[in-house]
Amino acid sequence: MYWFIEKGSITSTPGFKAAGIFCGIKKKKKDLALIYSKLPSIAAGTFTLNKVKAAPLLLTQEVIRKDNNVKAVIINSGNANACTGETGDIDAKEIQSFCAHKLGILPGEVLVASTGVIGKALPMTNLLNGINSIIPLLSEQGGTDAAEAIMTTDMKIKSFAIKIELKDKQITLGSISKGSGMIAPNMATMLAFISTDAKIGKKLLQDILSEAVNQSFNKISVDGETSTNDMVILLANSASGIEIKKDSPEYFEFKNALNELCIIMAKSIVSDGEGATKLVTIKVTGAASETDANLVGKSISNSALVKTALYGSDANWGRIISAAGHSGADLIPEKVSISFNEFPILHQNFKVNLDEKKVSKILSNPEFTIKIDLGIGNDESIWWTCDFSEEYIRINSDYRT
Amino acid sequence: MYWFIEKGSITSTPGFKAAGIFCGIKKKKKDLALIYSKLPSIAAGTFTLNKVKAAPLLLTQEVIRKDNNVKAVIINSGNANACTGETGDIDAKEIQSFCAHKLGILPGEVLVASTGVIGKALPMTNLLNGINSIIPLLSEQGGTDAAEAIMTTDMKIKSFAIKIELKDKQITLGSISKGSGMIAPNMATMLAFISTDAKIGKKLLQDILSEAVNQSFNKISVDGETSTNDMVILLANSASGIEIKKDSPEYFEFKNALNELCIIMAKSIVSDGEGATKLVTIKVTGAASETDANLVGKSISNSALVKTALYGSDANWGRIISAAGHSGADLIPEKVSISFNEFPILHQNFKVNLDEKKVSKILSNPEFTIKIDLGIGNDESIWWTCDFSEEYIRINSDYRT
Repeated sequence: MYWFIEKGSITSTPGFKAAGIFCGIKKKKKDLALIYSKLPSIAAGTFTLNKVKAAPLLLTQEVIRKDNNVKAVIINSGNANACTGETGDIDAKEIQSFCAHKLGILPGEVLVASTGVIGKALPMTNLLNGINSIIPLLSEQGGTDAAEAIMTTDMKIKSFAIKIELKDKQITLGSISKGSGMIAPNMATMLAFISTDAKIGKKLLQDILSEAVNQSFNKISVDGETSTNDMVILLANSASGIEIKKDSPEYFEFKNALNELCIIMAKSIVSDGEGATKLVTIKVTGAASETDANLVGKSISNSALVKTALYGSDANWGRIISAAGHSGADLIPEKVSISFNEFPILHQNFKVNLDEKKVSKILSNPEFTIKIDLGIGNDESIWWTCDFSEEYIRINSDYRT
Repeated sequence: MYWFIEKGSITSTPGFKAAGIFCGIKKKKKDLALIYSKLPSIAAGTFTLNKVKAAPLLLTQEVIRKDNNVKAVIINSGNANACTGETGDIDAKEIQSFCAHKLGILPGEVLVASTGVIGKALPMTNLLNGINSIIPLLSEQGGTDAAEAIMTTDMKIKSFAIKIELKDKQITLGSISKGSGMIAPNMATMLAFISTDAKIGKKLLQDILSEAVNQSFNKISVDGETSTNDMVILLANSASGIEIKKDSPEYFEFKNALNELCIIMAKSIVSDGEGATKLVTIKVTGAASETDANLVGKSISNSALVKTALYGSDANWGRIISAAGHSGADLIPEKVSISFNEFPILHQNFKVNLDEKKVSKILSNPEFTIKIDLGIGNDESIWWTCDFSEEYIRINSDYRT
């Protein structure tokens, strides 16, 4: 059994402190976050598949691969430290070792993450001064400050936590995340940091995280892009003393709660997508294979034509079936049916049943579901997308300047 | 040797007549076009790869597969006759046979095409009355009327012709086309009809067309979509008496001219993309394979983030390299270099040389080239794309209503 903690954050988990400050990378807003646990954590991570990877991401990947004790994560927003060549590598390493030194821990115990503009060197003086300033501010209430400090074009702070109730004990999962533009399957300008006080082996932690990410962050789309910096990090500091062993009752409880937390985070990223006014769930059923169900879900979620129609509250099922048709999935057009929430719009053999008033009312809601049944198999998948408004263009045509 | 004919059209080719009228599918604008050659034509075609195919497209595909004499093409805009089930099939066939009957030819000599809204039955009475009205209007000056009648959200009429000069004779290639939204690799809401008076075998004609389409229409992108109705049709009525045999001098002249015509048509479709303000050529060089060069070209051409940056005249090379990085192509980030027109912006090893003023001036032009060199091989490809403006959203969020 689990429940969401009101105003929960990454610091809801016992043993985790955090802070978020302005250090001078952005013009005014908070731009530096630090997460810290005195107890060392086992760490797992999933990373962008973009072949252009930012320096901090490569460094963090290496730490997670090699080291077993992680105590801190230092994150800046406003500058991605991507495509910055050797300078970028040197800067990321300097941030890591400076932060470790100031915290009195080892460089291999510090993870580094960045998000923001590509191709510009970090303002290192500001950043290192920032590290000096942020350490004394670490606190058990600092989660939301940290969440605020990792935002770029996000409109809302993303901070959630879950309490898992076991027989006589509790495990916590806390999180902060950021998203907005460039969200597409397989991690895109998206950062998520999750804390837990469970005690768990490294391989099992990685397996559970990878599965959760696959059902959540890899099923969302804002604009079909995949960025250079994206990562989901899960730190387990074992403070609860409760050990998670594969296939134990605790294991299933933990897995379910983590899945749920990742879905909540992923949905919050989509619904706060650049210029988004609606959060739309795409349920694909009746596919010939899981791969096909995902191809269809991804194609509909990424379709600029579907997303603009959603913005206009237009029940344009033609664009939905067309997006399914060019997804590459097996598909027999006559077998496809489509519903908006529980109202069937398109039956098999292209029988249309479109009560424009009723449907337009559904489509005007800030949240609804489109169900597409391919009618040829038993596989399914769930995706989340947002609509596509003029605001997306406005934000992205002058983001850099 | 060849040159473009001023104000050329599909009727620039000897033996071809055309007309375009309003018949009552749209509210006011021309919506029915007819192309006719008394001399029968050999026909070749390339068709959408979307698994959802419109009724008229399936019918036309069948005619081209089976029959060797084509004399007419009847095209309506405003309604795609797609996802219309059995009714749609019956309607497409009725249009074909009614048109054949009225022209005094066989149904198997008539091709049918539609473009417009998906999922609505055609207003058949208006359409058949339209066929009655349009036949007497067929003329050797009717090409541009036909071009106008196949437009949907296009802003400009697309009508071009080329004259090929041989030793003592001439061959003509005439065309009309339409595009606008939903243009993406492999034919998307895009219709193109090409006439020629060359004498040529069916297989050779198809091969030459497929190759030309691959280097032109399949290398353009407005919004990454692929539609249900798209086709490129080439009709050769042999009126010139000049026979094109494989690998003859005429063959190479003809092939070059057709390639050029298809590129001109494709570029005109991109530069008239929904809400487009700029036509951008993407030259990919130094790729490890042609497939990779195309993956990179396609990914950059389709990137919403690149396209919004182009709209904002923002020299955001970070988004370009990021789009290349998630294209799936082999890529070593440090080896990539990027130029805008002839100005290098990014050298290998992330050495940036960005004269913002100069580059912003280039990016404010209505037409420019972005060159990305992957630096790891010898393969290349050329793509064309447009920028992405608020206008695209506006058009597509209330297109149907």
